[in-house]
Amino acid sequence: MLSFENDYSEGAHPKLLQALMDTNLCQQVGYGEDAYSLEAKEKIRMACGCPEGDVFFLVGGTQTNQVVIDSLLSGVEGVVSAVTGHVNVHEAGAIEYTGHKVLTLPAHEGKMDGEELGQLLLSFYQDPTHSHMVYPGAVYISHPTEYGTLYTLSELQALSAVCRAYKIPLYLDGARLGYGLMSRGTDVKLQDLSALCDAFYIGGTKVGALCGEAVVFPHGAPPRFTTHIKQHGAMTAKGRLIGVQFDALFTDELYFEISRNAIEMAEKMKEGLRERNIPLFLDSPTNQQFAVLDNDWLRRLEKRVRFSFWEKADESHSVVRFATSWATRPEAVDALLAALDETREG
Amino acid sequence: MLSFENDYSEGAHPKLLQALMDTNLCQQVGYGEDAYSLEAKEKIRMACGCPEGDVFFLVGGTQTNQVVIDSLLSGVEGVVSAVTGHVNVHEAGAIEYTGHKVLTLPAHEGKMDGEELGQLLLSFYQDPTHSHMVYPGAVYISHPTEYGTLYTLSELQALSAVCRAYKIPLYLDGARLGYGLMSRGTDVKLQDLSALCDAFYIGGTKVGALCGEAVVFPHGAPPRFTTHIKQHGAMTAKGRLIGVQFDALFTDELYFEISRNAIEMAEKMKEGLRERNIPLFLDSPTNQQFAVLDNDWLRRLEKRVRFSFWEKADESHSVVRFATSWATRPEAVDALLAALDETREG
Amino acid sequence: MLSFENDYSEGAHPKLLQALMDTNLCQQVGYGEDAYSLEAKEKIRMACGCPEGDVFFLVGGTQTNQVVIDSLLSGVEGVVSAVTGHVNVHEAGAIEYTGHKVLTLPAHEGKMDGEELGQLLLSFYQDPTHSHMVYPGAVYISHPTEYGTLYTLSELQALSAVCRAYKIPLYLDGARLGYGLMSRGTDVKLQDLSALCDAFYIGGTKVGALCGEAVVFPHGAPPRFTTHIKQHGAMTAKGRLIGVQFDALFTDELYFEISRNAIEMAEKMKEGLRERNIPLFLDSPTNQQFAVLDNDWLRRLEKRVRFSFWEKADESHSVVRFATSWATRPEAVDALLAALDETREG
Amino acid sequence: MLSFENDYSEGAHPKLLQALMDTNLCQQVGYGEDAYSLEAKEKIRMACGCPEGDVFFLVGGTQTNQVVIDSLLSGVEGVVSAVTGHVNVHEAGAIEYTGHKVLTLPAHEGKMDGEELGQLLLSFYQDPTHSHMVYPGAVYISHPTEYGTLYTLSELQALSAVCRAYKIPLYLDGARLGYGLMSRGTDVKLQDLSALCDAFYIGGTKVGALCGEAVVFPHGAPPRFTTHIKQHGAMTAKGRLIGVQFDALFTDELYFEISRNAIEMAEKMKEGLRERNIPLFLDSPTNQQFAVLDNDWLRRLEKRVRFSFWEKADESHSVVRFATSWATRPEAVDALLAALDETREG
Repeated sequence: MLSFENDYSEGAHPKLLQALMDTNLCQQVGYGEDAYSLEAKEKIRMACGCPEGDVFFLVGGTQTNQVVIDSLLSGVEGVVSAVTGHVNVHEAGAIEYTGHKVLTLPAHEGKMDGEELGQLLLSFYQDPTHSHMVYPGAVYISHPTEYGTLYTLSELQALSAVCRAYKIPLYLDGARLGYGLMSRGTDVKLQDLSALCDAFYIGGTKVGALCGEAVVFPHGAPPRFTTHIKQHGAMTAKGRLIGVQFDALFTDELYFEISRNAIEMAEKMKEGLRERNIPLFLDSPTNQQFAVLDNDWLRRLEKRVRFSFWEKADESHSVVRFATSWATRPEAVDALLAALDETREG
Repeated sequence: MLSFENDYSEGAHPKLLQALMDTNLCQQVGYGEDAYSLEAKEKIRMACGCPEGDVFFLVGGTQTNQVVIDSLLSGVEGVVSAVTGHVNVHEAGAIEYTGHKVLTLPAHEGKMDGEELGQLLLSFYQDPTHSHMVYPGAVYISHPTEYGTLYTLSELQALSAVCRAYKIPLYLDGARLGYGLMSRGTDVKLQDLSALCDAFYIGGTKVGALCGEAVVFPHGAPPRFTTHIKQHGAMTAKGRLIGVQFDALFTDELYFEISRNAIEMAEKMKEGLRERNIPLFLDSPTNQQFAVLDNDWLRRLEKRVRFSFWEKADESHSVVRFATSWATRPEAVDALLAALDETREG
Repeated sequence: MLSFENDYSEGAHPKLLQALMDTNLCQQVGYGEDAYSLEAKEKIRMACGCPEGDVFFLVGGTQTNQVVIDSLLSGVEGVVSAVTGHVNVHEAGAIEYTGHKVLTLPAHEGKMDGEELGQLLLSFYQDPTHSHMVYPGAVYISHPTEYGTLYTLSELQALSAVCRAYKIPLYLDGARLGYGLMSRGTDVKLQDLSALCDAFYIGGTKVGALCGEAVVFPHGAPPRFTTHIKQHGAMTAKGRLIGVQFDALFTDELYFEISRNAIEMAEKMKEGLRERNIPLFLDSPTNQQFAVLDNDWLRRLEKRVRFSFWEKADESHSVVRFATSWATRPEAVDALLAALDETREG
Repeated sequence: MLSFENDYSEGAHPKLLQALMDTNLCQQVGYGEDAYSLEAKEKIRMACGCPEGDVFFLVGGTQTNQVVIDSLLSGVEGVVSAVTGHVNVHEAGAIEYTGHKVLTLPAHEGKMDGEELGQLLLSFYQDPTHSHMVYPGAVYISHPTEYGTLYTLSELQALSAVCRAYKIPLYLDGARLGYGLMSRGTDVKLQDLSALCDAFYIGGTKVGALCGEAVVFPHGAPPRFTTHIKQHGAMTAKGRLIGVQFDALFTDELYFEISRNAIEMAEKMKEGLRERNIPLFLDSPTNQQFAVLDNDWLRRLEKRVRFSFWEKADESHSVVRFATSWATRPEAVDALLAALDETREG
């Protein structure tokens, strides 16, 4: 069945599979010290404009959030997140499992506001009882957010400035970073993240890889980060699996090129939805599109197409998500729009 | 450089890569509910003789040990392991990180003794102060062990009987299980593990896969095991990556066939070592061979061949490990033996 | 300086100190198995109307919340609390430290609403992705709340009914329970807690003891609760210290009698505040009174009397807390009111 | 029944109770900031010869070990202890509960050997795979040990030198420190601990207090130590309870004077045991004496006197412990010796 359920429904971009084939029988050392991983890390440092930075490869997004945040925090610190942040909702308490509280701020279409962050930090330190409370020790944002929205460069600068004023690291979850960077109209570039963040990751799993996320510490990793990885069970013996894929993704700008496809397909879909007067829940500039559908229509549609239920809109309508990806073909978008037309009336 | 450093120096068996290619663009649901994973789980249940069992796919060995042991234990319980057990030494405290103590027993060439286990449990419950101590809540063994040795069926039965008498689960780390099952002379079969253990895993990473371990709970998984996986950051969005590989490994007995190759190569190597009067540290029946080499010889050899330093034997000798794998060719073993000959004298 | 800062500014009620003197040199076994503790536990079971229940003594409130909640939850579960709950704000992340998320509901003058709790649980189980989220595994309420307010019997029954429908325990934090039970007009009795809760504690530290809280599990304690206590570092070698004090508190209804004093003093204070047209932040029926004061007035007053700043009311006013206790004398309330009068004008 | 079961069978030294009476109704701020605690901390700093040090009061020994060790370690570090160390055996996994492994060394009558510690650290850093292992991040010793034995000054200096060479803190558990300092023939003084350790605690619970241990960081506490205390549920609202007691203990050398009584009583007991040719398990210079008794004798004796079973000596003999304390009277020792005589023959 045609699926727009998510951006990880297919395997890997064919060039990544080919690279795995090409390198398969070459003997390499384990644990991410193989030649492919080293090469990939160097390419990523160059692309990020942080030649002195540290790059590590991890398997998936929740794991990456857990390991990075835990390594950034001391025992009595928590991480600040928008209330809709992935770490606060859909990671089964992976942060709390490591002993740290998620301190929440309101979400504005998934985004954290710099002023509200500043106010939280100010209030914390002004509170005479704050030594009886969890210290805000790092800030977590996602870009694109869980709602497909993007920070502007000035919004990121504002968040970064607050973090630096309070000397706490800013960490950016880039599970879908490629789709954010290739969004039309964004003024945020990969190098900006190196300048503004203390840690971020470049998502591979949702952007063409079988698995893998590249964590970048533009100013250097926390001490003994390798041991943190091992301790969390996040070390892959055959680190080459991720290294080879990222090496391919960062050769000849493949990562950006395939991300652009998802954006083009999302824009085509958005246009089709608008032509059909289907309300959008919000105006997402990335690969996740959120539409509001009548529940009856939705039930007819789900026999033809796979998509994600997001949340209830009102008693008779739902918000649903259609995700494009590096693998989405124009024909698939046409088929989705046709299926919408054909299921419109009961 | 020729490498016998470990059994994860290459990528994947070509049939697994081919299966990834063949299925690559077929859209599938995420998180291990894809058709390939379901098919692979069924094949594994059949191979293990536990049609009612539960099978889950995880990425690596330390992760699997951490998630499984944590899910088997209550908060005040620890896991019993031989002092040389991987969980006690080389996992960066991954078990303690989840709040559980590793309670140690002496190791006999890497193995735990059933009588000593029984004695530990008896002493614990006889101690009037035991409520001030960590409860032994599960038993961890590896097969093959970290020293390449194997339990006999009767040794496993003895351990299992003790565990059942005290109603604590027996968990077997099968990172190299294929190499154990195909060892000449072993009387332990895969189905025996289903009968005697409460949980075990069939290692993929070291036996032909890019990554992946198959956890088997022959009598059913602990409650909410999926959430435990997620909480540990161990859930892969593209579960198909592991499912496809295990589906291939358990088609036409591929897992066993490629394991047999490692054993044959290890036996060939052992014969060559014996012919050269190179002492073996112990008589390993599996793919890891431990030799005792003069340190000067070792230093000459390591310019030609990669292998693992294991431990100091005496002031002038070291124990080193040569590992074969599914990928080892007879020519490579010949080359190792030739390199040994050529570096013998200074 | 005169202090209404909190209800733990003095030592212990003299009868408790006397009991400590009287029993001091009698040799007793340790860890809460002494004769005084056993006697006190029996008296508490009788007072609570749960002859089959289990009673344990712990040292302080945060410790009690941490140990009890951790022992009630499995690894993938969190505790539901009103957003203003002590466990969510002022315990330095003690719950998250043990690996569990605090799942929040809106607070209504500090209280959780039964319908909102039911909705949270229903939504959780209806969400098809809930296995990727923290399971709500217990409910935490405080009575009196952090705002001095009280649940009615029917409100408690509603919460209890929801918990039982979903088979999750209801835990009540009774740090100031005596003050709640002796509040004028409450329809909640100690025995009601045994009927409606699965765990609660009777606060000693804030109600006349030097330290100590009595945890009651009316239907029996979680398995190996003693080891949970020890593991959290919460076991007192000289358990008699708390046992002797609770024995005295539950002899001749001392606990209730001294609690009544705090209520009488709070009512006298409230009357005085009203006579002075000082607005109350809310109408607290217990020993904590919250007044709204002009900031200038506040600054003059704090040179004469100690009290707690609670929160900002508006740009020029603050909410402050005046707490009475078992030890508060009428003369002290008169002195507070006089100090208010004398500092009214700048 | 006469008891030598432990050194916490009585309440508090009468002077401590008197001080609690004398200060009882004076209003004080909470959480250890009261005047008595501040005064006591100053006296302790002076006694320890570390005027710049930080002192904190905690309730009990396991709690103190847990909070201090957790605050000294980073996430990937463990604590080194003799295998018989209290933290490794009788604290229900309190250290592992906080995520840290206890790394063990052999015990020599309960003591750790400086050379063995140096060897462990050297081997760790020489191991090329050490980033896959738990980092030794602090050293735990007890003085007196769990076997009543004492380090000599030169032994402590050796341990301290190794710790400083590797830049890891040395932490000394002084649950029975008074009894160690007053032991005849010891060359270790309280000020030596300030010079040689990074953290230690002066035990109150076993040396005359109702509860309480004084943690001393002679060179300053870890950052945010107060929040660590709170997070572990170890903060006492009425910190005065412990402050008042330590103020009394460190007034006019009371702590040392009452400790001397325990030593004198232990020496008297040891002399009596020797006169009766009762073998000592080891020659303890402090308040815990370990005798080897025939099991039949032991069973007759335990009807008359309470003591602790320690461990099996052989098939027909047991090691038992008799503990004296600040509260032991000479008549009680005489009664014990008489009971031994009267139960000698069956």
